[in-house]
Amino acid sequence: MQSQTSPLGEFDLIQRFFKTQSKAMLDKNPGSVILGIGDDCALLETDPAEEIAITSDMLVSGRHFFADANPEWLGWKALAVNLSDLAAMGAKPLGFTLALALPKADPVWLEAFSKGLFAIAHQYSCPLIGGDTTAGPLNICITAFGSVPREKAIRRSGALEGDDIWASGCLGDARLTLAALRHEIKLSKNDLEAIEARMHQPTPRVNLGIALRNIANAALDISDGLLGDLKHILKQSNQDAEIFLDQLPKSATLSNQSMDIQNQYAASGGDDYELCFTAPTSKRDEIAKISADLKLPLTQIGSIKRMQKSTPEIKLINSTGVALKQEQVNQLFQSFDHFA
Amino acid sequence: MQSQTSPLGEFDLIQRFFKTQSKAMLDKNPGSVILGIGDDCALLETDPAEEIAITSDMLVSGRHFFADANPEWLGWKALAVNLSDLAAMGAKPLGFTLALALPKADPVWLEAFSKGLFAIAHQYSCPLIGGDTTAGPLNICITAFGSVPREKAIRRSGALEGDDIWASGCLGDARLTLAALRHEIKLSKNDLEAIEARMHQPTPRVNLGIALRNIANAALDISDGLLGDLKHILKQSNQDAEIFLDQLPKSATLSNQSMDIQNQYAASGGDDYELCFTAPTSKRDEIAKISADLKLPLTQIGSIKRMQKSTPEIKLINSTGVALKQEQVNQLFQSFDHFA
Repeated sequence: MQSQTSPLGEFDLIQRFFKTQSKAMLDKNPGSVILGIGDDCALLETDPAEEIAITSDMLVSGRHFFADANPEWLGWKALAVNLSDLAAMGAKPLGFTLALALPKADPVWLEAFSKGLFAIAHQYSCPLIGGDTTAGPLNICITAFGSVPREKAIRRSGALEGDDIWASGCLGDARLTLAALRHEIKLSKNDLEAIEARMHQPTPRVNLGIALRNIANAALDISDGLLGDLKHILKQSNQDAEIFLDQLPKSATLSNQSMDIQNQYAASGGDDYELCFTAPTSKRDEIAKISADLKLPLTQIGSIKRMQKSTPEIKLINSTGVALKQEQVNQLFQSFDHFA
Repeated sequence: MQSQTSPLGEFDLIQRFFKTQSKAMLDKNPGSVILGIGDDCALLETDPAEEIAITSDMLVSGRHFFADANPEWLGWKALAVNLSDLAAMGAKPLGFTLALALPKADPVWLEAFSKGLFAIAHQYSCPLIGGDTTAGPLNICITAFGSVPREKAIRRSGALEGDDIWASGCLGDARLTLAALRHEIKLSKNDLEAIEARMHQPTPRVNLGIALRNIANAALDISDGLLGDLKHILKQSNQDAEIFLDQLPKSATLSNQSMDIQNQYAASGGDDYELCFTAPTSKRDEIAKISADLKLPLTQIGSIKRMQKSTPEIKLINSTGVALKQEQVNQLFQSFDHFA
């Protein structure tokens, strides 16, 4: 750790933008944090009824974000993608570490970055408890910790034949934003403004994950695209799936695009950070209640089927209930970068 | 996490070099790990009698290692520096996550890196439990987890007036190796071979940290140089210190250098990853026993003094028991890059 002895020689900047706010947050509500920034390690208190969930994501300039990305959005998103992983297991956030490589110690950038970072940290009661800072090409690595009652974590491996497949929120808006920013698709200013936060400041579905602990058989967060991510559930659960293409939840903005774009982006666009989960049909009423309580659309988008071959398969069902043939699937996704 | 969906598109490489070895290690001895690589999060079991210690270090090419560094050494060192932080708190390793940005997926590099990484992971029973891989400028971020009995973690803030100050092992060899590699100092091939592992493959003092849980009042690991690091203990404990310059433990190789080089490198050379700790004088016999049991030299190098001014100070004492004047200290360290 030794944030104090940052090779940037910019301890006052670290102090100013990270340590002070971290301490203020912990003073107000330490939660499980016994010791935060400033020693060789942070210390977390453990609860014998809980397991600790751990996830780590590294964001690199030019790959996960544009080099000139708004640093406030970046601070938000760097923690959001980790909280999304905690949500996918049904874990409640406990805290996170931040390791940051910076080309230079720019106070304007750091102030905006820390503003976005602490905004989401406060929103999900997830304090910064430690980390590292160094000079180097811009790289943001966050490791986040959560707690989940023993044996209640929602794994990818638990999907059962006959389960409904669900998705939260809307799918495809982050991909549509990317297409607009890349000038692949022209969106009006209003349309772009309506959806761009979905790419820049995604909402981790933490409360949904917690609510699903005793309901979902399997879950993950959709970071690379629904179909590709669902394959992880199918592979680990040894199941096939059917997905009803016209049931995929889409925003009004995406619904104005061509049907092919709608299907491509909703089925395979990455960066949505919605949850995809499976649950027995007997849980439909409880899921509807969770949706109402959280004011978050939860849409039944398909179902889990018995695996037919040695590798899991997804059948895409059209609006008339007919499965697309492989050549139709290929045609739909052939030019699409996210489809694996 | 989603190592499976690495943006490198090189899942087979990740599988081959990280996931398979991680799984083999966990199958043999899961320890506290309930779930390793392959889901949204890893899961750790908690023990109500223990706290979880967490540390994160980011290593960047050109700053923490040469761009053409031996990848096997690098794999070792990346985990070693984190285990050293756990050791400094008296924590026993539980596991670690690895986030890795790579310019290209080079199987030769990855094989050597993973060889070094798993060599030290096995040695300290610290399994890889999750992480992330992405394309980008070479960056290695490891977050490590350990356990320490409740309220037994050795903090930087516990040093008391009258405590002895101790150092483990020898100091300054990593700095001497760096000087030789930079051609600042000429060393014979034999001399370099005798010490270079101290820079490339440091030994985290994990067993020493655990043995010191009920003995040391304060501890940290020496990563930036003894005097600079000791200042952290003094600042957090509100104490001054005296250091006996001629008592600093040095290897035979360093002892062949000029007295100024010896003092500079032992007092302020970084990258040694030895422990510096303070303990009451009543613990000397127990510390001698630990030293014998671990076959690790432990040297009393000074003592903690009551703080005289508003900021902590370190007096350097020469072989005749006289404190160096400030101008002598300045002269000794003026050309030395690590001295803060």
